[in-house]
Amino acid sequence: MTIQRHNVDKRLSEIVVHNGTVYLAGEVPDDTSKDITGQTAEVLAKIDKLLAQVGSDKSKLLSAQIFLPDMADFAGMNVAWEKWVLPGQAPARATIEATLANPAYKVEIMCVAAL
Amino acid sequence: MTIQRHNVDKRLSEIVVHNGTVYLAGEVPDDTSKDITGQTAEVLAKIDKLLAQVGSDKSKLLSAQIFLPDMADFAGMNVAWEKWVLPGQAPARATIEATLANPAYKVEIMCVAAL
Amino acid sequence: MTIQRHNVDKRLSEIVVHNGTVYLAGEVPDDTSKDITGQTAEVLAKIDKLLAQVGSDKSKLLSAQIFLPDMADFAGMNVAWEKWVLPGQAPARATIEATLANPAYKVEIMCVAAL
Repeated sequence: MTIQRHNVDKRLSEIVVHNGTVYLAGEVPDDTSKDITGQTAEVLAKIDKLLAQVGSDKSKLLSAQIFLPDMADFAGMNVAWEKWVLPGQAPARATIEATLANPAYKVEIMCVAAL
Repeated sequence: MTIQRHNVDKRLSEIVVHNGTVYLAGEVPDDTSKDITGQTAEVLAKIDKLLAQVGSDKSKLLSAQIFLPDMADFAGMNVAWEKWVLPGQAPARATIEATLANPAYKVEIMCVAAL
Repeated sequence: MTIQRHNVDKRLSEIVVHNGTVYLAGEVPDDTSKDITGQTAEVLAKIDKLLAQVGSDKSKLLSAQIFLPDMADFAGMNVAWEKWVLPGQAPARATIEATLANPAYKVEIMCVAAL
C-alpha cells in the first residue's frame, strides 16, 4: 500500500494518506488576534481545505484530538466545533489542556479521517 | 469502505469504526468521588462496554493514550490498568500529564482497537 | 486481520501491527543526562530500531506526537528531528507541552507508521 504525502516541509507533512486513512498534522490558527471561537473556526476551515485536497471531507472524520492551552476556552472552542460538525457524523474526540509551540495559539487540532 | 458511528452526540461519537479499526473517544469516569484506581477501573469498564458494542474486546487493543491531570497518580492508575490488560495483549501506550475538561476527572483514556 | 505484538510487558507493547499499520508506544530516552537534542536523537534511534524490527522504517512514518515537558526545548528537539526525517517523507506531526512519567525525560514521541 502506497503512502501519499502533501504539503511536506522539513518537519512534517500536513496530510499523509495510507490504506484509506488520512492523517493530518496538528493544525493551528493563522490569525492569532481572534478569540478562541474565531481561532477554532479558522483551524476547522483549514482542516476542511486539507481534507478536500485529498478528496475527503468532514463527514469522514474518524478521530480528533483538541489541545487547548487554557481549558477555560473549552466552551468557546465548542461553539465553533458544534457549528462545524455535521449532525450524526462527529468523530471520536478528546480534548486536553496543553501548552502549544506558539503562546499566541489558543487551539490546535489533530485529526484522522477516512479517504 | 463505510464508516460506522455509535453513541453520537453533537460533539463526538464515542465509537467510530472504519476499515477494521475502532476509534474510541476519550473516556472519563462517571463517579468522580473514587480515587485514581477506582476512576481508572471505571473508565476501563466503559471501554470494555464500548468495544463489546461493536464486537471487539480488550484483546484487540492497538494503542492507548492516558491523560492524568496529576502525574502523581501514575502508580495508582497502573494498578487498575495492569489488572485489566490481558497478558501478552497490551496496546502501544503513552501516558502524559494533562488538565482535563472537568477538574473532578483524575484520568481520561483514548483507545484505538481492531474490530 | 491478525494483530502482531512485540516487546510486550504487563503495561504495554512497544510495537503493535494491524492491517498494514504499525503503532508504537511512546518512546523515551534511556540516557537522561543528555540535553534535549541528545535525548531526541536517542528516542529517534529507538524508533528506527523498533520499526526495523517489523520491517518498516522512517520513510513510512504516518503520524507522530511529540511531548515536551518544557516547550522551551522545541528548537533543540527540532534540531535532532530535522536531521533524522527523510526529505519529502515527514509524518503528520503535533508537538505539545506535557509533563511525563519521569521528570528526567525531556521528550517522548509516539508514532504510527505503515508496514
